[in-house]
Amino acid sequence: MHGREDAYGRLIADALDGKAPIEIVERDDGMVLAYDGRYLVEPFRRWQPVERRAMRFVRGRVLDLGCGAGRVCLHLQERGLDVVGIDTSPAAVEACRRRGVRDAHVLSIDEVDARLGRFDTLLMLGNNFGLLGGERAARRVLRRLHAVTNPGGRLIGQSFDPHGFTDSIELAYARRNVERGRHFGQQRVRVRYRDLATRWFDVTLFSPEEMSALLDGTGWRLRRTLPGRGRGYVAVLDRVES
Amino acid sequence: MHGREDAYGRLIADALDGKAPIEIVERDDGMVLAYDGRYLVEPFRRWQPVERRAMRFVRGRVLDLGCGAGRVCLHLQERGLDVVGIDTSPAAVEACRRRGVRDAHVLSIDEVDARLGRFDTLLMLGNNFGLLGGERAARRVLRRLHAVTNPGGRLIGQSFDPHGFTDSIELAYARRNVERGRHFGQQRVRVRYRDLATRWFDVTLFSPEEMSALLDGTGWRLRRTLPGRGRGYVAVLDRVES
Repeated sequence: MHGREDAYGRLIADALDGKAPIEIVERDDGMVLAYDGRYLVEPFRRWQPVERRAMRFVRGRVLDLGCGAGRVCLHLQERGLDVVGIDTSPAAVEACRRRGVRDAHVLSIDEVDARLGRFDTLLMLGNNFGLLGGERAARRVLRRLHAVTNPGGRLIGQSFDPHGFTDSIELAYARRNVERGRHFGQQRVRVRYRDLATRWFDVTLFSPEEMSALLDGTGWRLRRTLPGRGRGYVAVLDRVES
Repeated sequence: MHGREDAYGRLIADALDGKAPIEIVERDDGMVLAYDGRYLVEPFRRWQPVERRAMRFVRGRVLDLGCGAGRVCLHLQERGLDVVGIDTSPAAVEACRRRGVRDAHVLSIDEVDARLGRFDTLLMLGNNFGLLGGERAARRVLRRLHAVTNPGGRLIGQSFDPHGFTDSIELAYARRNVERGRHFGQQRVRVRYRDLATRWFDVTLFSPEEMSALLDGTGWRLRRTLPGRGRGYVAVLDRVES
């Protein structure tokens, strides 16, 4: 990742500095949304309730895909678990290491393979499940993730049901997606912070039903969902033994 | 102003709705800054101290240039003053009227003329002084504003000294301005909010010394400055009688 692309890294650095940085998500139709970036470094007690609840399903050796500043890795290490964090942001991984995350790597979700070893729990919180991309790409990565998971393994991913939108802008965006053969809830976005901007990337929002259908043939099965804010939820997937 | 351009109008509507909208200012070099948009509707007691202090210099018939949601108009009306507000945002002007501003018009600073009558105090708070543009445009508008002001009139404008920046991005931006014959503190920006974006426009930041030089020959004289946050300040200008 080029330095000018590491918007998350700078957000994290500023949040760790005690600032209240604003994360700007720009969509390819010109929509911009702004989020309080302090969530990136918040301790367990200030997480969303659904994220805290999701932690009860974590066990064994853990891979946190898109670990950011390491808030989840640090929490699980404190609980005595063996955790590996990966993130595409070099500054995020550097922050993880500085904060005490023992095993963090600059690596994208697509690059996960046996070199990291095998895991019992895979974590994709904070909409990171959406980073799997559209349906075809998501299926390919899910199969790869199956290959690095032990029997009895789990994948815990956060998403948001896009079918509840009533806003005309959101409906127009989803309709255009479908016309173009993209997934209804696919969003082409980039994150901007000050003078930095990530590359454009896809975040795909799946309803629980869509996620369940997506999993077919990938080695994963939707076990249960935990309701979150609005139409957000955490999905707990079980590895199917073949 | 086209509906898709009325980002300020929607920000104001959402702030009046009790939301905490984030105003995103995007500069033409890719820099983005985010501000808590609630300032647009805040009552007098929550204004910046320098803005509150500036109100002591207001007298007579007042023109508020860039009146937004009418926070300043409403305060001055309560004090019994006769106030006219102008803004280029139709939704802002509509909000002003709904909130009780008696005299608000969709009008740009460039369009001010004798039809609005004559004023004793002109107000350009919230960096609105910067909307005068670069040096040449600013001088032209200042002369026009002189023509709609009564003898003994004042212009109260807020700005920010751009010469204190030490950040390399800011220095590079200012240097490029100078290379292109633009003012050191000129900023080409647009405001974005959700799916809306204003046109690109210039906001020019002047040091008090630069402002003083700018006024030469325009019918205005810098009387005093009131220090604000950081390198921000409010300038009180006296109308020069010719």
